[in-house]
Amino acid sequence: MTRIVEIRQNALKRNDMIARELRERFQRAGVFVVNLVSSPGAGKTMLLERTLAALGPRRVAALVGDLATENDALRLARSGAPVRQIVTGTVCHLEADMIRSALEGWRLEDLDYLFIENVGNLVCPASYDLGESLRVVLMSVTEGEDKPLKYPSIFFGADLAAITKSDLAAAAEFDAENAERNIKTINPSIPIVHTSAKRDLDEWIAALKAARAEQRIYAS
Amino acid sequence: MTRIVEIRQNALKRNDMIARELRERFQRAGVFVVNLVSSPGAGKTMLLERTLAALGPRRVAALVGDLATENDALRLARSGAPVRQIVTGTVCHLEADMIRSALEGWRLEDLDYLFIENVGNLVCPASYDLGESLRVVLMSVTEGEDKPLKYPSIFFGADLAAITKSDLAAAAEFDAENAERNIKTINPSIPIVHTSAKRDLDEWIAALKAARAEQRIYAS
Repeated sequence: MTRIVEIRQNALKRNDMIARELRERFQRAGVFVVNLVSSPGAGKTMLLERTLAALGPRRVAALVGDLATENDALRLARSGAPVRQIVTGTVCHLEADMIRSALEGWRLEDLDYLFIENVGNLVCPASYDLGESLRVVLMSVTEGEDKPLKYPSIFFGADLAAITKSDLAAAAEFDAENAERNIKTINPSIPIVHTSAKRDLDEWIAALKAARAEQRIYAS
Repeated sequence: MTRIVEIRQNALKRNDMIARELRERFQRAGVFVVNLVSSPGAGKTMLLERTLAALGPRRVAALVGDLATENDALRLARSGAPVRQIVTGTVCHLEADMIRSALEGWRLEDLDYLFIENVGNLVCPASYDLGESLRVVLMSVTEGEDKPLKYPSIFFGADLAAITKSDLAAAAEFDAENAERNIKTINPSIPIVHTSAKRDLDEWIAALKAARAEQRIYAS
């Protein structure tokens, strides 16, 4: 047991070193990097599809992680933005060295935004820094308001919470107040936006732009 | 890297040995054990809540796994059935020895059904046999029809697929034919049931009873 824990800690230390290198590289290039984490089916890909269309396709790119299939990359590439798939096999999260390899040959200076769609999982991605500027946890209105309490690490480690599929809120009898209270219990200062990839991206896009502007002021 | 893989394989071997003991114990006691796996928010707890009411509360019990909180156990205990929570901390799945410990003091002979609600995760629980009679993978109509292709191991390893929240199918524009085709691509012989914990449990309860009857004929 001790040996497993030690090996895991070494792997995390190595990941953090690579993530730090990536973060410096992203800042030098002036690209704002967003790491999207959520359970499977919370709507990461559709939100990203609409976000690429709203922000791009120029100066915006995406990396997408999945255990299997290139479906998401094919779907997102229709936006015209550069997209690459990372297939993780049995690994339930993305790691910093996967990001570094996937970026090979891309000129980061040409980008304003780089989105990273993590593997759909509310546990594993919490421990892996990818060098991102903003970690966003998505939670759909159909998942149940209690998810932040049951998966605290991932909500605690996020910089922004996006409640997705708000067009289904009434049908799913979603209790927004309860959901927001649970998110704030785990992460009191986190901003929360509501979004529907099908109907309304405004609050989400505004939050992205504000976070990017804030980072640029801070960096300069 | 080789060391991590070796340690993981030893851990799995140990799990399989305990799972085999559990399976023999379950069969001797005549209890039908159902392991429910799905992504977070697919509706395991609500389905279980209604299932305990439909089958029990006598001769039915449940174990529920979560990283944190005892909420699900408290919620399920209202049915009157014996329920215990397993809190896993940072572990993204249940393991056979957690089941063995959680069962201490329970007379399995007094049960017809034991439900195990796994941690919400479409990756980690796939590798851990819990000695169950039936592994059920749940997938809600709001998750997207592509999940079986993106998380193949968990669909491949299941004995029954339950499509949940069917009351939301129209609102979510769910394509049942596409979803079923994707499930069958990964696991051609798996039976599929449609269920709504809010409105219609019939197909699901019938499938459980049939699977239990089949096991009893096979065991006798």
